[in-house]
This record gives sequence, C-alpha cells and structure tokens, in this order.
Amino acid sequence: MEITTGILADLFVLFVAARLAGTLFARLKQPAVIGELLVGVLIGPHVLGWVGTPDPAMVEAFHGDAAAAQAAVSLVFDLFAELGVIILLFFVGLETRLSDLLGVGGRAIAVGALGIAAPFAAGYAFMVLRGTTTTEALFVATALVATSSGITARVLRDLGILHAREARIILGAAIVDDVLAMILLATVNQFGPRGRLDVLEIGLIAAQAVGFIVFVVLIGTRTLRQFSAHLERLPFTHAPLVVALAMMLGLATIAGAVGLAAIIGAFLAGMVMAQEAERFALEDAVVPIYEFLVPFFFVIIGTRVDPALFLDGRVMGGALAITVVAIIAKLAGAGLGGLGLGGRAAAIIGVGMVPRGEVGLIVASLGLSRGLIGAEYFSTVVVMSILTTLIVPPLLAWLGAPLVRQPGPTRGERMGAAGRLPQM
Amino acid sequence: MEITTGILADLFVLFVAARLAGTLFARLKQPAVIGELLVGVLIGPHVLGWVGTPDPAMVEAFHGDAAAAQAAVSLVFDLFAELGVIILLFFVGLETRLSDLLGVGGRAIAVGALGIAAPFAAGYAFMVLRGTTTTEALFVATALVATSSGITARVLRDLGILHAREARIILGAAIVDDVLAMILLATVNQFGPRGRLDVLEIGLIAAQAVGFIVFVVLIGTRTLRQFSAHLERLPFTHAPLVVALAMMLGLATIAGAVGLAAIIGAFLAGMVMAQEAERFALEDAVVPIYEFLVPFFFVIIGTRVDPALFLDGRVMGGALAITVVAIIAKLAGAGLGGLGLGGRAAAIIGVGMVPRGEVGLIVASLGLSRGLIGAEYFSTVVVMSILTTLIVPPLLAWLGAPLVRQPGPTRGERMGAAGRLPQM
Repeated sequence: MEITTGILADLFVLFVAARLAGTLFARLKQPAVIGELLVGVLIGPHVLGWVGTPDPAMVEAFHGDAAAAQAAVSLVFDLFAELGVIILLFFVGLETRLSDLLGVGGRAIAVGALGIAAPFAAGYAFMVLRGTTTTEALFVATALVATSSGITARVLRDLGILHAREARIILGAAIVDDVLAMILLATVNQFGPRGRLDVLEIGLIAAQAVGFIVFVVLIGTRTLRQFSAHLERLPFTHAPLVVALAMMLGLATIAGAVGLAAIIGAFLAGMVMAQEAERFALEDAVVPIYEFLVPFFFVIIGTRVDPALFLDGRVMGGALAITVVAIIAKLAGAGLGGLGLGGRAAAIIGVGMVPRGEVGLIVASLGLSRGLIGAEYFSTVVVMSILTTLIVPPLLAWLGAPLVRQPGPTRGERMGAAGRLPQM
Repeated sequence: MEITTGILADLFVLFVAARLAGTLFARLKQPAVIGELLVGVLIGPHVLGWVGTPDPAMVEAFHGDAAAAQAAVSLVFDLFAELGVIILLFFVGLETRLSDLLGVGGRAIAVGALGIAAPFAAGYAFMVLRGTTTTEALFVATALVATSSGITARVLRDLGILHAREARIILGAAIVDDVLAMILLATVNQFGPRGRLDVLEIGLIAAQAVGFIVFVVLIGTRTLRQFSAHLERLPFTHAPLVVALAMMLGLATIAGAVGLAAIIGAFLAGMVMAQEAERFALEDAVVPIYEFLVPFFFVIIGTRVDPALFLDGRVMGGALAITVVAIIAKLAGAGLGGLGLGGRAAAIIGVGMVPRGEVGLIVASLGLSRGLIGAEYFSTVVVMSILTTLIVPPLLAWLGAPLVRQPGPTRGERMGAAGRLPQM
C-alpha cells in the first residue's frame, strides 16, 4: 500500500461525510454548513477517529515518530481546509464588483473598525477585571477581535444574497477587519514580550498590508483590463481559468506573506477578475472546483473541535463568559457601524461579523507557544472560536431570509450544467 | 504568517511553472508534459530549490525537527501529485466505454501479460549475470515490470487519440499490467525474505484485486444504470458531479487498499460513470478540476529528479544498461502482444507501455528500506524510472501523429466554455 492511501481514505471520508450531512441538514431546512461542521466533529480524531489520525504506513514513513506523523496529517488537513476557503472567497470575489465595495466603503470601514475596537476593549477590560497580567489580557483581547469571513460568506452565498447591501458591507468590513486585526496583533506581539513598541516597524507592517491591497485593486484591475483582450489568445487550454487560478494562488500567498489572511488575497484576486468573469464564463468554470474543495474547509474545521472541552467545568465557566463578551462586543461594534440602515440590516451585519473561526486560534496558539498566555485561556479562546462560529449560520439564515428574492432566479440556477439550485 | 503559507507558495510556484513551461514546449511543437517535467527538475530541491523545502515556520511547527518537516512537505507533494494523476485517469475513464475495453480485451491481456513477463525475465537474467543475490535480482526485476500509465494517458489525450484502438489496448493493458505487477510484487516480497511462498496468501491477494475490478465493472455499471434516473433529483447542488467525485476518491482508496495503484480505481470510477457522462455533461464539469490539479502530477514528478545522479559515473553505467534492458524488454513484450496490428500500432503500444514512473520507485524503496537491495541498485532503478518516463512523450507524439484526424473536431473543442484546443 502506498503511503498516500491513508490520506486518500481520509479525503474520501471527509468528502462523503460533508456532502451527506450537508444534504441532511438542507432537508431539515437547516444551513448545510452546520451539518458539515458537526459531522466533522463526529468523525474527527476526538470522537470517532475515522479521520485525522495517521495510519501505521504513515507512522513508518516518519521512522516511527507518531507525533511527527500526526503533525503531517494535521498539515495536510490544514492545507485542504485552507484551499477550500481560498476557493470559497475567490468565488465570492468573482461575484463582487469593486464598485460594489467602493459604494459601501465608508460603512465597511466603520463596521470593520468598530467591530475591532469594541471586542478588544471589552476583552481587555474583562481580563483585567479577572486579575490577569497585562500581557495575557492583551493577547486574549487580540484573539477576540478578528472575524473569520468564510462561514458568513458561505451562508450568504447559499441564501443567494451576496449582492444585498448588507453582504457587500460585510465583505468590505472583513478586509478592513483583517488589516486592523493584523496590525493589532503585530503591536501586541511586540508590546507584550518587550513592554515597548517600535512604531516604525508597526507602521511598515501596516503600510505593507494596505499597500498590497491598494496595489492589487488599482493596478490589478487596470492591468487586467488592458490584458484581457489577449487572455483568450494565450496559447494554452482554458487560459482565462488558468490565469485566474494562478492569480488566486499568487495573491493568497502574498497576502499570507504580508501577514494578512490568505483568503483576503483570494477574495481580491476574484474581485479583480470579476470584471471579466462574465465574458469568460469564469464562475461556471470555478463551480466544479468549488464543489470539490470547499466542503473540506467546513468539515475539517469540525474535526478540530474536541467536545471534551465543553465537559470541563473549570474551562467552561470562563469560556462561556468570554464568548458572551466576544459576541456582544462584536454585535455592538459592528452593529453600531451599520447604524441608520435599519434594525435588521444592522443585525445582519453584526451577526455576520461574529464568527472568529481560525483567526482567534492562531493568535492564541502564538501566545501559548511563547508562554504569554496559560493553557486555561488557550482553551477559553478555542471554545469561544467554536461557539461564535457555530451560532452564526442559523442566526444569519433566519435574519437573512426576508432578503431572499422569491422566486427570482439566482445566479446558482444559471450556473452548472446538470446542477440544481444551491440549497440551504 | 500562518504555517500553510509556505506550502501555498510552493503550490503557486509549481502551478505557474508547469503552465509556463508546458506552454513554451507547446509553442516549440514539443509535448507540454516534457516542459512540465523538466521545469519540475529545475525548480525542485535538487537544483534551484524554489519548492519542496520546508520554510522556517514549518520546521518550527515540527518542533525544530527539519527531517520531519521535510518528510511532511514531501507528503504534501506526493498527495498533490497523486490527486493530479487520479483526476487525469478519472477523466480518461470518463472518455472510455467499458465496451471499448472489452472489444480489445484479448489484446489487452496479451499486451499486459507479455509486457510484464519480458521485463521480469530480462531483468532477472541481467542481474544474475552481474552476479547479484537471488533476492536482489528478484526485486530489481520486479521494479522493472510495472507501467505507469499517467504519462502515456496524458500524451494520448493531448493528441486527441484516446479513442484509437491502440489507445484502448494500452488502457486495458495498463489494468492487466497493474494487477500482474501487484501479484508479482506480493510474491517476490514473500519469497525474497522468507525463501518460500504461501500460495494461498498470494492467491487471496490476487483474488482480492481481480474481485475488486470485476465487482466495480459489473455491479457498478449495473447499479449506476438503475440509479442514474435518481441522480439528478438528489437534493444537493451538482449531484452527478459530486457523486462522480465521491466514487473517484472511494474507488481510488479501495484500489490502493487492495494493493493496486490508486489510479486504477480512479480510471474504473470514470469508466463506470462514462455511460452517464454525456447526459450529465460530466466531462465539461471535470475539465476545470483537471486544469487545476493535473499539472501538479507532472511538475512534482520532476521535482523528485536529482540530476546529480546522472553525473555519477559509477551509478550511470549500470543504470543505462538496465534502462536499455527495461525499454527493449517492454517494447518486445508489449509489442509482441500487439503483433498483427501493423508495425506502427505495435510500436505505439510498446512505447506506450514503457514509462515506469513511480511504480518502480515504490518497489525499489520497499527493497531498500528492508535491506533487500543495495543503495546502488536503488539509484539504478531511480534513473531507469526517470529515463523511461522522459523518452516516451516525444516518441509517442511522433508515432501517434498520423492517427490524429485532421482537421476533425476533437472532444477538446466541445469542452470548455472559454477554452481552446488542447495543444501539444
């Protein structure tokens, strides 16, 4: 048996489980994402252990080092989750015009900025009141700030309301949010251990991130417009799709390299291609890749959840408290940014920014590995990430339902050859 | 920076390099595969080192264990190469009717069986004449037998002659070849170390493999026929594509688990779906996944090549000799199976079966890790695998050119939305 057979078996089980659970939840009129997340928890290494554990052949390939083999399997899972969410945000980008975002630019900045400030302030105050060190309070507060836009984007797309103003504000705010969260992390990361700040260094990091975004949006859009006439004439098969995929991988990599989330790069790549998407039927072409890879993101996120955490009373007390802080502060901050759009719109925007997903985990892992936060607060952040991620799909589906135009045709209907409407 | 950014950067570089080199070679009227393989050698860890080496973040994630981090990166590369060739053979399966193969069944069995027997006998004789141990002779001879059908399938598809009789015979023979090679490996693997055979065990292994293939072909085809009316009505998006991908991953996994190559399972999955492919526009749907993942196979194979091997005179003497034995024996055996079809047809079939690719490497690695063959013969097999793989695309393109119907429309032309003809 080849060494990759075990991993291949994992991918097969993940794929089938995600599709079955998603379908079951859609049948029950629940968001499919919830089914995919929960089945991930079930088949993951913490419960049934059907996936995510290296088989003997893999351990042998790592010279019997089970921990290294486990880390390698986790790396493969991380990569497939990342690829899935990259394709997802790239696809969402393809459905988003730059003008859509610029039209709500002010709102998006307000939502993004307030959605960062409120959870940070609330988290810091909460921790200090519990009597932790300044460093620990800073790190946990930072872990509370960043929104993970994958879940929200998926729910909005499944509902077919990506073009609603609320959705555009959320997408714009997600970019602002990620930039600010990254700058905040860099700041805390310096200040925490050193107790002082190198303002120049922070400024450079911020300038790099903002410069990347502005460069891609301005220069990318312009270059593509000049280049697109040649795109069809490139001497290889399906040139527009190939160029789009290369841009997606490239900008995702660069975004990651300048400290942003890779999905921000993928989203920008999609948005830059959006102007040519219709001409080259790019959305149709990306759908099969979406169907193959995107479910991996949600089911793999599920596999990382250890339900035992929720049975540990010592962790859960603080975790629930901080989760409530995280939810209320984000709702208040982001919702405040949406003030004046009406109650439902502000609520959708607020709820849409609640999921913390993997971003909080990355901050917490960083703090834990450097000994800046204790294991208890690490678990706290893990629980907070899980809960903020799990509560959003049903809430958002419920809040967003009135925005779904019935029975108008959605983009999904025009999309696949033998497809059906995307189901929620 | 997240830990997957380094791997993402590798995927980006691999993707772009493969597409650029493939395009360049197509422009020079050379097979694109050659460009993809060679650029892989160039950017791989043995030459420029642009890809395939873990970055510091990755090493840190493996607690500073650079060897484990390297093994993890190699695992990811293996997996992407495997996924690429699985998609390739699945796609080739979609273009192959069961009746196409059954119509050339006798020929395929003759080509497959003689194409195994001749290299094994020639390799064994060659090794014994060089005075090696029986075990070593058996292992090296076994490493010479198995054909890796990925390269040939790609060249035939790029030429647009997958439906020529020669191509169908090669595809059928590749299945026979893989079953026989697997049984041979199991036999040698027992006999080598133990000096005796458990015929019952070998029989069980053989029965399992043959049973899997017969079961998939007979039961799978029949079940799908009954099930296909429901396929469109499944309650999720793009149900036929999703079911096809699940079958592809599932049968590839099972093939791997019963000791066959995973690509045999993927090919069978494609062939079973072929009867419904037109109805559900499955080929169109798989093309974008093909464009995304298949190039990884060829460029990653390239990254594994260490050109320094070719500068080592001590290795190269024996390696060239055994490569010549491997080529001539396969040409003679497989060509003999094609006797009576005409010189060009027999030559195409013979050459099409020559590439050994990764199959020989797996056998050789097994022998090396158990101390049954020495490092010198391991390198010999590596060189043989590389050379047999590299010489085939230009030869096959040259031999196959007259079969390309000019200027009749190929399937490629009907395929993608914004696509161009596949180029060679």
